[in-house]
Amino acid sequence: MTGDVRRIAVLGAGSWGTVFGKVLADAGREVRLLARREEVATAINEHRTNPEFLPGITLPSQLTATVHAEEALDGADAVVLAVPSQTLRANLAAWRPLLPPGRTIVSLAKGVELGTLQRMSEVISEVASVPTDQIAVVSGPNLAREIAEEEPTATVIACADHDRAVALQQACTTDYFRTYTNTDVIGCELGGAGKNVIALACGIATGMGFGDNTRASLITRGLAETARLGVALGADPMTFAGLAGLGDLVATCTSPLSRNRTFGEHLGRGESLAQAEAANHGQVAEGVKSCSSICALAERHGVELPIADAVRRVCHEGLSAAEMGKELITRAPRPE
Amino acid sequence: MTGDVRRIAVLGAGSWGTVFGKVLADAGREVRLLARREEVATAINEHRTNPEFLPGITLPSQLTATVHAEEALDGADAVVLAVPSQTLRANLAAWRPLLPPGRTIVSLAKGVELGTLQRMSEVISEVASVPTDQIAVVSGPNLAREIAEEEPTATVIACADHDRAVALQQACTTDYFRTYTNTDVIGCELGGAGKNVIALACGIATGMGFGDNTRASLITRGLAETARLGVALGADPMTFAGLAGLGDLVATCTSPLSRNRTFGEHLGRGESLAQAEAANHGQVAEGVKSCSSICALAERHGVELPIADAVRRVCHEGLSAAEMGKELITRAPRPE
Repeated sequence: MTGDVRRIAVLGAGSWGTVFGKVLADAGREVRLLARREEVATAINEHRTNPEFLPGITLPSQLTATVHAEEALDGADAVVLAVPSQTLRANLAAWRPLLPPGRTIVSLAKGVELGTLQRMSEVISEVASVPTDQIAVVSGPNLAREIAEEEPTATVIACADHDRAVALQQACTTDYFRTYTNTDVIGCELGGAGKNVIALACGIATGMGFGDNTRASLITRGLAETARLGVALGADPMTFAGLAGLGDLVATCTSPLSRNRTFGEHLGRGESLAQAEAANHGQVAEGVKSCSSICALAERHGVELPIADAVRRVCHEGLSAAEMGKELITRAPRPE
Repeated sequence: MTGDVRRIAVLGAGSWGTVFGKVLADAGREVRLLARREEVATAINEHRTNPEFLPGITLPSQLTATVHAEEALDGADAVVLAVPSQTLRANLAAWRPLLPPGRTIVSLAKGVELGTLQRMSEVISEVASVPTDQIAVVSGPNLAREIAEEEPTATVIACADHDRAVALQQACTTDYFRTYTNTDVIGCELGGAGKNVIALACGIATGMGFGDNTRASLITRGLAETARLGVALGADPMTFAGLAGLGDLVATCTSPLSRNRTFGEHLGRGESLAQAEAANHGQVAEGVKSCSSICALAERHGVELPIADAVRRVCHEGLSAAEMGKELITRAPRPE
């Protein structure tokens, strides 16, 4: 059932979905990418490019695209979900009748669903009615653009079923993409969800003019609070010290390619959420939504998240960046 | 014995010693800074500046300088050692007869001594004949220039004697410098020593043209290998997830102010050690020395450090940066 993964459906042709499809194809797999728009599928099939999301990158010929879910999913040995976290439920409900039974479902989405406060693997398990050990997540310091350019990158493939993780590992290891397996799905998902919020905090600090000490402290304390929440949910604390925790967090918080960090910089310069949104092509960053669901999840489990809570209040309750900075630095001295 | 710390001697007037002296003075303490050169002491006492190491920064009046060790140490409630790690032994031997008995000795130096493979607290304990619980270390994401500019910064004060750590914490907490106590001296020292080597590795990768994914992976795996060595030496693994581990590492590896990172960039562009040294005002970076002592320490304890060992071979055995990169990315896939 979990045997060799030869043919893979990647549902979602944004930048990360397309790049992950390229990695799988470069690893010798046959990949069918589901695009929403005909022109994206055509560009991939006829010109081997995805000009909107990955300008300048030539895609491999073993990666083909379609706008028909049934075509993408036909005969797939594994299904990769590459849609935003807050739209995963609706998309998956539509695809559900077409999912090949027993196959590994892989989540690339990072976040906690607003309202239900479910992690992505919980949403998948519920909507697709599959056991959780059939669901894998991919997480790590994975800026899509850099992987597209074949820069050396490492990632974690987490699945409660180790054999499925290994089968996937074999399906996506290339000379530029190095994979590690892990059985801690909860930890990998929390690391991925938390990092967007901490990246917003780092962006806010940078926008206020603060430097590398401040940012490094926010990364460190931010990882510690994310790990506290993860442990309360049943994660292994060591996962947060790994690529899906620390690694992903550092890449997101330090790269100029990170949208959450850039969005936070606007807020740190004193702009409103609406102004920051306008500067970001009319989109809010993922962390703006996740900070609400993560803080609600933390409250449910009695875990304190000072940084995420400050970000939430800046985004949604009108706390100023200056007040946030003052609040975080003046907490009472104590053991680490 | 460990009571209130009012008067403090800071031995060494380089950038970190001077800035730490400024923090103590800003926290209301009387600070005497020992400079080697008369002109540095004069500039501090008469113009409240240290133009060579901290141009543009005005120092507080409670910070005075002298070139006489006995004057700096007279009546000191605590002694801060702010000299480079490989010269600490010789300096301390000269100051030893002047050290006030029973007072906390604070190490700002980061490294492992070549030859003896001792941590700085071990060197201090041996040379000054003091018990280890009288020795504290300060470590964290502490780029001196940023602290001088009073940017919000957090740090760890580690001492086996918690009361001494708390007395020091009170002596150096200001509205821009936030301190946490810790009793794990070994972990804090190892984190500080290891980070310079990992920063060299990050610099090498940057010099080769690699981006943020690669750097984040090196930081993550570099912290993991440093923690493995620390645990073998008796450190608490959690220290490496904190400000003196992760925090210091992230600041050093991502800041353009880091000399080790910049030095590594030269090597990554294919320059020789001598060329990189010439570009760095004739000095080798601290990590160039520490990589040898850290790898020797790891070998003694049977711990594998793939990144530090690769850096060591680039610095001292003629391994090319390109070979180093290839070697690290092509290690066999495995669980994280």
